[in-house]
Amino acid sequence: MSAPPEPGPAESALLRAYRGQPVPHTPVWFMRQAGRSLPEYRRVRAGIPMLEACRRPELVCEITLQPVRRHGVDAAILFSDIMVPLAAAGVDLEIVPGTGPVVAEPIRAAADLARLRPLAAADVSFIDKAVRLLLPELGGTPLIGFAGAPFTLASYLVEGAPSRTYATTKALMYGHPALWHDLCERLAQITLEFLRVQVSAGASAVQLFDSWAGALSEADYRRYVLPHSASVLSGLADLGVPRVHFGVGTAELLAAMAQAGADVIGVDWRTPLSAAAARTGGTRPVQGNLDPTTLFAPWQVIEAEVKRVLADGAAAPGHVFNLGHGVLPETDPDVLRRVVDLVHATRPR
Amino acid sequence: MSAPPEPGPAESALLRAYRGQPVPHTPVWFMRQAGRSLPEYRRVRAGIPMLEACRRPELVCEITLQPVRRHGVDAAILFSDIMVPLAAAGVDLEIVPGTGPVVAEPIRAAADLARLRPLAAADVSFIDKAVRLLLPELGGTPLIGFAGAPFTLASYLVEGAPSRTYATTKALMYGHPALWHDLCERLAQITLEFLRVQVSAGASAVQLFDSWAGALSEADYRRYVLPHSASVLSGLADLGVPRVHFGVGTAELLAAMAQAGADVIGVDWRTPLSAAAARTGGTRPVQGNLDPTTLFAPWQVIEAEVKRVLADGAAAPGHVFNLGHGVLPETDPDVLRRVVDLVHATRPR
Repeated sequence: MSAPPEPGPAESALLRAYRGQPVPHTPVWFMRQAGRSLPEYRRVRAGIPMLEACRRPELVCEITLQPVRRHGVDAAILFSDIMVPLAAAGVDLEIVPGTGPVVAEPIRAAADLARLRPLAAADVSFIDKAVRLLLPELGGTPLIGFAGAPFTLASYLVEGAPSRTYATTKALMYGHPALWHDLCERLAQITLEFLRVQVSAGASAVQLFDSWAGALSEADYRRYVLPHSASVLSGLADLGVPRVHFGVGTAELLAAMAQAGADVIGVDWRTPLSAAAARTGGTRPVQGNLDPTTLFAPWQVIEAEVKRVLADGAAAPGHVFNLGHGVLPETDPDVLRRVVDLVHATRPR
Repeated sequence: MSAPPEPGPAESALLRAYRGQPVPHTPVWFMRQAGRSLPEYRRVRAGIPMLEACRRPELVCEITLQPVRRHGVDAAILFSDIMVPLAAAGVDLEIVPGTGPVVAEPIRAAADLARLRPLAAADVSFIDKAVRLLLPELGGTPLIGFAGAPFTLASYLVEGAPSRTYATTKALMYGHPALWHDLCERLAQITLEFLRVQVSAGASAVQLFDSWAGALSEADYRRYVLPHSASVLSGLADLGVPRVHFGVGTAELLAAMAQAGADVIGVDWRTPLSAAAARTGGTRPVQGNLDPTTLFAPWQVIEAEVKRVLADGAAAPGHVFNLGHGVLPETDPDVLRRVVDLVHATRPR
């Protein structure tokens, strides 16, 4: 007597929720679930620079699997860094611990664009390898592809380092719109290729992170950013995988981000899921919203917040439980496991 | 034949706009107009630490006047730092250039509250002196009083330094609500006294800066913050001056911030003024919204944005032109002057 075959990722709770279909339980994963909150991550990363780690398929596979093993989440998300495709496209940069991405020569003029060549699949063959290593390990657990959106990537390339005001980026955007659009078109090509490699290798969904788009007004977002995010998202349409689009502080941008071509709306902790669903037409599944700092609260506070998010998410045509931003490094992994169990134990409405 | 007496601040365009009355021109001032964008500021501040500068009445007077002289703005705002009343109430802190406020011993437990004594008017007599020096110099130009709101002050006291996530602050808020409310009650007393000193000495309006409240969800804001901001704002009611309330990233909070007792809603660059007016009941004047980074754009872009803000602000029952956050230090002061002239030359609707 042989066991029935395990259902594939396409039948998973995550994919069903992303498609707005009924689910046996609310699926849950955490942005940055693979990372510094896990001691096993810190162990395997010890002494290995971030970009180097992202280029080693075996290590990417191991790190991507760690939170699936430990937390029992409903999805893996490919461990990578948003700067990986830019480094692969020729940009001289490094990820400085405690600071973030630092670009050796920021892009500020037309001549600088030459440093950004088109990305070919062969430039990121390590990604293809990592995904192919992951699939048999993951079995029925879906893998989400990962990439940064053109605005967020451009902000690092133009500022040269993380910024609080994006003043240099916006000055270039306002003052040199042709250069800005040229830059973002190149970034859209790179991002699209990076995601297509992941999906072609077997990722079942993608999440496009425009982490810092919330720094823009809706008018600026629509004029300077939306066309480029739309070009990435529409460029994935033929692959037939759900496309999640997420940013922080996007209260005023959600409708525009949905119009960019998102199938699923990622929401930070400021905008309730029911409001996000309503503002984006009431037709799209939603994901996110638990404030990552809630995980430092006593369990009874966490429990109440998890239940609030679950109840509120039921207003949308589909709900994937997640945080409103990435797991903070100081988070206790046991708390994440407890949240997963609570989400799974709560009957979806 | 003697000249007619100059009208006092109460008849100024600023006060008229703050009261929702017709104005001869749209009044304009800039958050952080007194500061590092001005060479004359950098000159007088050279070698003088921030807190020390804030305690010298003659220097506060000079710095507060500088942008009024140079730009012809419709209001002065008292030059100070949000940490000034906390230092005066006994907290050991300094403003570190390039970093911000650093608190020697952060407040994390009930015993730490003893380091925060009630503020008495005598603790900030230098503020009373500065305002009294300013009034004759300002003539008919109104002076706006300045203070930080309890949440923003608490975030510095709990974190000990500027933060991106406010994780320690929120952990204390969620995990020790009694301690949190005790802390914020003390901060509300300090803030209220600090503002009452300014108004008693002659300030014609106040602006309460809850700069970082936008880090909170509306539910958390209402539970943990609103009562304390309301206690400050209601404690000013008998003085009869307009109370402006401002924060950054407050798209989801504007209605709640208005309910805290704001007469005028300050708005960052993400939320259009017409939307802010509508969300707060359509009864309150609005202020703000020009993205401070716009000032790095070519003049034609700035001009279009200034006109857009002016047209959009006309939807509210009163409009004071301002930026959506403070003037960035790299801003060209000549551009600020040009913006003032453009605002003044545009007929209010």
